[in-house]
Amino acid sequence: MTERAALALDLGGTNVRVVAVTESGDILARQHSSTGRRTSGEVYDEIARLAKACREEAGDVEFAAFGAAIPTTELDDGGVLGSLPNIPQLAGTNIKEELGRRLNLEVVPVNDASAATLGEYWLGASKGTRNVVGITLGTGVGGGLIVDSRLYVGVAGGAGEIGHITIVSGGEACGCGRRGCLEQYCSATAIVRQAKERGLQVTTSEAVFDLAEAGDPEAKAIFAQMGSSLGFGLAIINNLLSPDIFVVGGGVANGWAQFFEPVTAALIENSLPDRGSRVKIVRALLGDDAGVLGAAKYTFQQL
Amino acid sequence: MTERAALALDLGGTNVRVVAVTESGDILARQHSSTGRRTSGEVYDEIARLAKACREEAGDVEFAAFGAAIPTTELDDGGVLGSLPNIPQLAGTNIKEELGRRLNLEVVPVNDASAATLGEYWLGASKGTRNVVGITLGTGVGGGLIVDSRLYVGVAGGAGEIGHITIVSGGEACGCGRRGCLEQYCSATAIVRQAKERGLQVTTSEAVFDLAEAGDPEAKAIFAQMGSSLGFGLAIINNLLSPDIFVVGGGVANGWAQFFEPVTAALIENSLPDRGSRVKIVRALLGDDAGVLGAAKYTFQQL
Repeated sequence: MTERAALALDLGGTNVRVVAVTESGDILARQHSSTGRRTSGEVYDEIARLAKACREEAGDVEFAAFGAAIPTTELDDGGVLGSLPNIPQLAGTNIKEELGRRLNLEVVPVNDASAATLGEYWLGASKGTRNVVGITLGTGVGGGLIVDSRLYVGVAGGAGEIGHITIVSGGEACGCGRRGCLEQYCSATAIVRQAKERGLQVTTSEAVFDLAEAGDPEAKAIFAQMGSSLGFGLAIINNLLSPDIFVVGGGVANGWAQFFEPVTAALIENSLPDRGSRVKIVRALLGDDAGVLGAAKYTFQQL
Repeated sequence: MTERAALALDLGGTNVRVVAVTESGDILARQHSSTGRRTSGEVYDEIARLAKACREEAGDVEFAAFGAAIPTTELDDGGVLGSLPNIPQLAGTNIKEELGRRLNLEVVPVNDASAATLGEYWLGASKGTRNVVGITLGTGVGGGLIVDSRLYVGVAGGAGEIGHITIVSGGEACGCGRRGCLEQYCSATAIVRQAKERGLQVTTSEAVFDLAEAGDPEAKAIFAQMGSSLGFGLAIINNLLSPDIFVVGGGVANGWAQFFEPVTAALIENSLPDRGSRVKIVRALLGDDAGVLGAAKYTFQQL
């Protein structure tokens, strides 16, 4: 019997990636391009073009379905996308119909951070555990939850919105319309904002990290504060969910050396007794492949 | 084929209740007494006495196991209990051994608020839904989580500790050793503390509720603040888990008429857009039976 395979998408504000992957996790083909300034129809056309190129590259393989990791907090059962802060032109479009029609395949959408969490659980940093909280630190902050060895997506695919846990009552205004969300203290955007407030001449969180590694006290203080805020938020989740492990990914996770100690200290300090030191906190391992692999795995599970 | 049956316990700081219940939820026998000032051995003896009385009362029934709802935040796989603030003499004892030996039955322990949540899901307020957050407002605040139609207990049975979500940084000191926990703003203890701070001559949260119902502005303000704090905490959970429904039980839920409006308003205000008005919030229906029924259901599922 031939192994099943799926096509899988990770759609970001900057890059669109499509792979062909088998049920044991072998990537048979990869395609990517930039999301660019396209209309919604053009975005779907580009995804379809990459998917067809993957099909050709993979050769004589039949695909069971198309898994789609999408940066939205709301996915209704019919496939209509909620708000997408980084690709707003797709809001309200029906991804199942748009891609299903173009590819003649069943489309299984899933939140991108949930997909990345499942990818790491399948083949990465949390393999072999049971209860996982994944955190993606990027332009915003996303998250995903593995509960008793299954991805938990919640009503309208909305579970795992770690970035919108309130950690400071009446704190910084957030794009979601509320205040004090974790995202406003731990994302790349937040790190750059704080750097500017402290007079550093930087435009990226990587540059702040480089300064911190070179010993700049302001840059080091920013990562110390970011780690402390993240640990405070993760402790709330730890008390509520009692997971085995936290897996931290996304671009900002590259600053691990600067925030690992404060995040761990704050996690222990704010967790219930015993629970802070019992839970593990590790870096993600799969980089950009986590989302596509997780979207594929979710698709295999749904079929 | 005869239907399976279980014995089930709900152990509280004040009352100990044991029932005999069938797999379809029929209660065949009930026994209860006061927890009293007993040594740990005497508590286990008393539970065994009630269980044996239930066995006799139920007549010709064979019991598959003994489900035990216990007020502890930590249950290791071997049956050793963590801290029990209201029955401290049981901390560190092995409930599986102690009761297994006395009753010659397999013992399945579960956190009491998790059990109550499962009981309401099986036969009460959240029947027919899929993702549930249960809140027990009593002397303290407990909680339980139904995820994709299954009780999720987490590592060491510790999931659902809603009472220890931080809602005020640097706020009121909590018995867990930290500050600003939800329990310090929404429990019966917190309501009585606030009433005393406002000069009301009361010793129970029921008395504060009676004053509020009679129009006392201080008592009304206490419930308004309690509802607002609870809604703030539930919004954190709503953003993280995107459940279908919140089920509010425990003694303080009797004050529902005084806090329903502020809890709903704060839940909507602090949830992500759409998510606050989509989720339901209802009162528990089963009263004191929720815990024993949930312990029994969990036991049937584990066998």
